[in-house]
Amino acid sequence: MDLDDLARRLHEFTSSRDWHQFHTPKNLVMALAGEAGELTALFQWLTPDESAKIMDNPETADQVRHEVADTLAYLLRLADVLNIDILAALAEKIDVNERRYPVDLARGTALKYDKLGSKHS
Amino acid sequence: MDLDDLARRLHEFTSSRDWHQFHTPKNLVMALAGEAGELTALFQWLTPDESAKIMDNPETADQVRHEVADTLAYLLRLADVLNIDILAALAEKIDVNERRYPVDLARGTALKYDKLGSKHS
Amino acid sequence: MDLDDLARRLHEFTSSRDWHQFHTPKNLVMALAGEAGELTALFQWLTPDESAKIMDNPETADQVRHEVADTLAYLLRLADVLNIDILAALAEKIDVNERRYPVDLARGTALKYDKLGSKHS
Amino acid sequence: MDLDDLARRLHEFTSSRDWHQFHTPKNLVMALAGEAGELTALFQWLTPDESAKIMDNPETADQVRHEVADTLAYLLRLADVLNIDILAALAEKIDVNERRYPVDLARGTALKYDKLGSKHS
Repeated sequence: MDLDDLARRLHEFTSSRDWHQFHTPKNLVMALAGEAGELTALFQWLTPDESAKIMDNPETADQVRHEVADTLAYLLRLADVLNIDILAALAEKIDVNERRYPVDLARGTALKYDKLGSKHS
Repeated sequence: MDLDDLARRLHEFTSSRDWHQFHTPKNLVMALAGEAGELTALFQWLTPDESAKIMDNPETADQVRHEVADTLAYLLRLADVLNIDILAALAEKIDVNERRYPVDLARGTALKYDKLGSKHS
Repeated sequence: MDLDDLARRLHEFTSSRDWHQFHTPKNLVMALAGEAGELTALFQWLTPDESAKIMDNPETADQVRHEVADTLAYLLRLADVLNIDILAALAEKIDVNERRYPVDLARGTALKYDKLGSKHS
Repeated sequence: MDLDDLARRLHEFTSSRDWHQFHTPKNLVMALAGEAGELTALFQWLTPDESAKIMDNPETADQVRHEVADTLAYLLRLADVLNIDILAALAEKIDVNERRYPVDLARGTALKYDKLGSKHS
């Protein structure tokens, strides 16, 4: 199944349970933020090194996979109700970021694009 | 471009800027939560009806599309560094939810699965 | 007990369990975001009217009170490790907002301050 | 000014701008999550050590202070509209946590209370 198939499956899941009444864009954004919060909670006390090994523990790995899946589910539902082509939106955003973060200026720095190259200004 | 192509493009974008040092799972989860927070901020004062019309204003529509794209970008990066097959994870989660939320019990209610059908218990 | 007393109690709670190693500013910000996410999850499917009555259900009311308390706890810990006088910071921010949102321009609108009064510009 | 004074000042700020219509519990929870997201964004690429020095840069320090203040502001507004005594709620929650995390079991570990002392089980 590709992304479109899964988005359709989520749409049908929602329809068959009469849940469209709950899936306003506002509510879906909250659900997305709630899932991102659950992911955050799984990582909050880990050192960067520990966070890189989080999938080594099968129980935690399962939680992470579920939260990642839930986050994607609500993001696809949100894109659906807002009529956003999410793959096209991402492709465009990568184009924008390639212009905002030229390789030679952005290499090795986490500065935001509006601070890049400020040594020259 | 499908989801895998975009995930690969994001991987190369990261490599060519030497940004893998910043893309620990912990940091990517924070970035994801930050983007979800920005989406939340766009919807926070809207009524449900207003939220359904958010794409009618071209300027706001553009912001929403960008935040949705950024959220997907960090989710794909996270799945990449954790070696999660995100489409398979979502397909499995939908299977789980189909069992947790049987159509006849879940129809028209926003109750969590562990509260469903409690009238029978 | 006032806010300072509670901040001190939280500090001692942390010290006596040797938890300062976990309470980096970065980790506390994540914990705060995680609690905000849990609050969000409690409200995500409610209509505005239902959200106004959330404290009528004793079980849910208890959850909300706990999440509100947890959010304040992590905010106080964060202010502690960053050496921020949180009451002074808030007083200053209200001053800023009183200048940014003059009563006559801001009345009845949820526009951000940089969009206020744009009809005159 | 103590916390109650600031909560009252925020209430009056809201009244005088006729903003109570926007301050439903649902919307305030979203605003709180949005501010937590902005704080998260300030810390997302920092190492733990860098996060401990974030207040050394005056510009960033100012942003952090403002976000901490905004988070407290929305938390106080939320407690106000839900009629929660936030200081009492926090005092109770610390009591709960002192029982959940006994010093001898919780020392030096970030395990959740339901996993504590599982070596004995």
